[in-house]
Amino acid sequence: MLARTHCGDFRVHHIGQTVRLNGWAQTNRDHGGVVFIDVRDRSGLVQIVVHPDDPAVHQLAHSLRQQDVIEVVGEVIARSDETVNAKLPTGAIEVKASTITVLNRSETPPFMIDDTCDTGEQHRLEYRYLDLRRPKMQGFMALRHRVTHAARNYLDSQSFLEIETPILNKSTPEGARDYLVPSRVYPGSFFALPQSPQIFKQLLMVAGMDRYYQIARCFRDEDLRADRQPEFTQVDIELSFVSQDEVMAVAEGLLRSMFDAGVGIHLPETFPRITYADAMDRYGLDRPDVRFGLEHVNITEMMKRVEFKVFREPADNGGLVKIMRVPGGSALSRKQIDDYTKFVSIYGAKGLAWIKVNDVTDLPGGLQSPIVKFLPEDVLADMLQACGAENGDLLFFGAGDEKVVNDALGNLRVKVGHDMGLVAAGDHRFVWVVDFPMFAWNADEKRPEALHHPFTAPYAEDLDKLESDPLNMRSQAYDLVWNGTEIGGGSIRIHNPEVQARVFKTLGISDEEADSKFGFLVNALKYGAPPHGGLAFGLDRVLSLMAGVDSIRDVIAFPKTQKAADPMSNAPSEVSDAQWKELGLRKRRTIQES
Amino acid sequence: MLARTHCGDFRVHHIGQTVRLNGWAQTNRDHGGVVFIDVRDRSGLVQIVVHPDDPAVHQLAHSLRQQDVIEVVGEVIARSDETVNAKLPTGAIEVKASTITVLNRSETPPFMIDDTCDTGEQHRLEYRYLDLRRPKMQGFMALRHRVTHAARNYLDSQSFLEIETPILNKSTPEGARDYLVPSRVYPGSFFALPQSPQIFKQLLMVAGMDRYYQIARCFRDEDLRADRQPEFTQVDIELSFVSQDEVMAVAEGLLRSMFDAGVGIHLPETFPRITYADAMDRYGLDRPDVRFGLEHVNITEMMKRVEFKVFREPADNGGLVKIMRVPGGSALSRKQIDDYTKFVSIYGAKGLAWIKVNDVTDLPGGLQSPIVKFLPEDVLADMLQACGAENGDLLFFGAGDEKVVNDALGNLRVKVGHDMGLVAAGDHRFVWVVDFPMFAWNADEKRPEALHHPFTAPYAEDLDKLESDPLNMRSQAYDLVWNGTEIGGGSIRIHNPEVQARVFKTLGISDEEADSKFGFLVNALKYGAPPHGGLAFGLDRVLSLMAGVDSIRDVIAFPKTQKAADPMSNAPSEVSDAQWKELGLRKRRTIQES
Repeated sequence: MLARTHCGDFRVHHIGQTVRLNGWAQTNRDHGGVVFIDVRDRSGLVQIVVHPDDPAVHQLAHSLRQQDVIEVVGEVIARSDETVNAKLPTGAIEVKASTITVLNRSETPPFMIDDTCDTGEQHRLEYRYLDLRRPKMQGFMALRHRVTHAARNYLDSQSFLEIETPILNKSTPEGARDYLVPSRVYPGSFFALPQSPQIFKQLLMVAGMDRYYQIARCFRDEDLRADRQPEFTQVDIELSFVSQDEVMAVAEGLLRSMFDAGVGIHLPETFPRITYADAMDRYGLDRPDVRFGLEHVNITEMMKRVEFKVFREPADNGGLVKIMRVPGGSALSRKQIDDYTKFVSIYGAKGLAWIKVNDVTDLPGGLQSPIVKFLPEDVLADMLQACGAENGDLLFFGAGDEKVVNDALGNLRVKVGHDMGLVAAGDHRFVWVVDFPMFAWNADEKRPEALHHPFTAPYAEDLDKLESDPLNMRSQAYDLVWNGTEIGGGSIRIHNPEVQARVFKTLGISDEEADSKFGFLVNALKYGAPPHGGLAFGLDRVLSLMAGVDSIRDVIAFPKTQKAADPMSNAPSEVSDAQWKELGLRKRRTIQES
Repeated sequence: MLARTHCGDFRVHHIGQTVRLNGWAQTNRDHGGVVFIDVRDRSGLVQIVVHPDDPAVHQLAHSLRQQDVIEVVGEVIARSDETVNAKLPTGAIEVKASTITVLNRSETPPFMIDDTCDTGEQHRLEYRYLDLRRPKMQGFMALRHRVTHAARNYLDSQSFLEIETPILNKSTPEGARDYLVPSRVYPGSFFALPQSPQIFKQLLMVAGMDRYYQIARCFRDEDLRADRQPEFTQVDIELSFVSQDEVMAVAEGLLRSMFDAGVGIHLPETFPRITYADAMDRYGLDRPDVRFGLEHVNITEMMKRVEFKVFREPADNGGLVKIMRVPGGSALSRKQIDDYTKFVSIYGAKGLAWIKVNDVTDLPGGLQSPIVKFLPEDVLADMLQACGAENGDLLFFGAGDEKVVNDALGNLRVKVGHDMGLVAAGDHRFVWVVDFPMFAWNADEKRPEALHHPFTAPYAEDLDKLESDPLNMRSQAYDLVWNGTEIGGGSIRIHNPEVQARVFKTLGISDEEADSKFGFLVNALKYGAPPHGGLAFGLDRVLSLMAGVDSIRDVIAFPKTQKAADPMSNAPSEVSDAQWKELGLRKRRTIQES
């Protein structure tokens, strides 16, 4: 039998050859008795031509309907000059069919199998096997393959071992909610699906594996408001005997290889770094989008000189006052400014003060704003200077609680940047955010909580603050931010069992709780744990950014809906009485039932 | 800082260099004031030498205990001729330490971290992070990495796309028991963990993905009598527009690449094939170990000529009578034969008839056996001829129900082959078993059941037997057998929706059941499913055979016990009341409670 040629691979050098191809009929056109059929497989599309001289083949060709699966044997011929299609890789040739075999017929599909299809996502997920047949979706799956394969090759070249960690784990509720798996052998007990392989990868370092990687499935039973999935995939690495810098260098190489293979873009050798403190100061967010300016300027100190309560009170009471200068922003309408005011209210801001800078040399007359009258001229001058204001600028102000101001002005910055067209298409900017605080204050529980996770190592020089001043400790944690989206993060871990015990104590985790949840890790640290650290990338997020799609669902072959269900298979579903019994479970009759 | 050199990498060309290394102290010996420390990491072991001339370093070296984690900086020096250790790759050199830093101390480990350790498996699993630190176990993890990486590279070179299929699936109880995951969003409903990605990989073919692969985690909630695990890994592939031969050729290439990378053995270009019928006839098992002879000879027809009821009855009543000739077997003692008789009783055989062949030219006097007196001389002569008996042979007989005879004599063949030293160490023999029956008879339910799974395609020429004579249909299924162990299998799948419906009917699966369990697959076949087929290898089993270990647990980083538990993390475990409530579940009070 002739070897198969893939539809998209035909070129002029095939002319004259007898070939065999397989694929799906896309279109079927009759031009004066000559039938033209576009046949497609994963590799692309080729045009089949059937002349009326062979009535049997001609009749079959006529009968073909969209998505019928066929095999064609024929001769590759040149298209006439007028019919060459320069837009199609195979557009210089066509295949003159000598036989066509129908391998399977297709009923009329529920939606068009092409990239113009705009059917609703629920419908697409119900018929995912047809949705995935669209060239764009096939392309996303191929992208996913190329990127993960490149990641594996890179990590192999750097002496990482791929090691599988268990999916049936112990439940250690912390952070997100676990998916549980009832045990039949131990009725009333459960396994949990892993939220990440964190503890296992640390144990692999204790086991001397030196460099571990896994493209690991992780699970979180969360309400999927944002673009999240119950199961997702992370590129997970861990290394022994390394510094933060070494982990970051490996991660940069990894991402370079993925980017190169995925979208053919060469990233720089090293990515810039910014401290958490700097990021909050200049961008208001710990995931700064550094593709554009609009940086914040802190004027809290300056505001101690004014009477204006809105600015003075935060300055006096540990709050924050910031300016965001928008070059050319004075052209914004009152309506636009009102919309931005509404926008920042989402983040808890009670208002959005602003000044339009018409003439920097004329104070206060050259400034247009409801608040100018509350500010002395010298302060106005200092403000303008501090943020480098020029004529035509608009200054937005945030004042109040530090978190609210940063949230509001940080998110406003991103919105204004996009609205004003400051974000260049195709610009990919990566930045490391480093030196995170070790702990954040949990106001509800009145205790410090781990900003990353409780295994994150503090800087050695901050260690003596662990009991006395934990909120001012920095951790050896790092996040990687791509165009304003956090795509990964990691840390150097605690390898010393005493330090780990002290951190648990600071977190208010009792010895008993630590022992029942993490006892095996704490124990492991006692038997020669090497210094180690690592990182994980959210693969689905990375791919959606590469693919330029909004939802990670587009780069996952069989995703769940926002309501954590699969409309195709109808999972989750009822199970049999026998299954309930075997697991020793019954349904709780009402929510109230205890 | 100096770049790190891995302990096992030191060679004579490093002599004179100042180096840095990290690892675990193994031993600490003092020879006349000079301290020798073996330091090990994943790559191997190197000897550190500390002379008393630097008292601080010397004192520290003295203090080192087993499994302390250290960093050493020093100079590589040649060992004196008398102390060169030719058995050690680093044995021509040693590192004269100028500084030693203790990175972490180790308590005395619960067992020795070396390959001579013979502590019980329960203990090893409880401290798996230490068990894995043993060189042998690290070697198994490295083997696993090499093999899977080679598999991925091979499949990538063959245009396969790695595509992840969901772990949260629909429960379709069939064959083994599903692990279930209660849904919080839909209380009383469950996801199921996949027993294999079978349906999803077929859907990917419907989606036009052409070639799919995944190194996929699979789950079965079975009682783990045999060497099974609740979660295991398979190398899973599926291809469109292919014949059985093409799938097998890809699988051979895949296995060749894995074998090459794993253990450096080059397998042949193609593996021999045997039909299921032949395998049963000659070996009694559908997983024949073809490393040695001892083939069976069917003498059922011949036994229609004898009076001897034990042989005659099966011959007359659709049973089976077989000889297994054991060359040189007449040297076996009565005790040994008795033991074999006991052995075959495990498989339901009521006895084990035998004949010692002392002189083939002297019938019946040259034959020693309790049964010779029941058999006429001409039949004895025909028997000897049929099996090619020679002086010194022992003939074993199986007679009775076909299944019992094949089971008994098939397993006896393997046992005798091993006992008699017919199995050469290092011999790796692969054989494809093809042309399996499409259905087996389920005597309990009095209906045919799928021998592989209900999606397996029959041979086209057998299709008309689907309703009339299903038990005599052959399927396009194939198993790969390695030294008598089935390591993988697959089939061409049904792509025609009508054929699939007919097969469900023959299996006694109602339309309603088919729709609720597999409706989405059946539906998918209607919209242009291409002809397709595939195969899966049991990765854990393949690796255990490569590693030469008895248990797949040795090639899994964190396996469960035979009781489906993890003694390290104590999974499965109790969960909180809040977790029970969120899932809408409560414990069934007694087994009887309905």
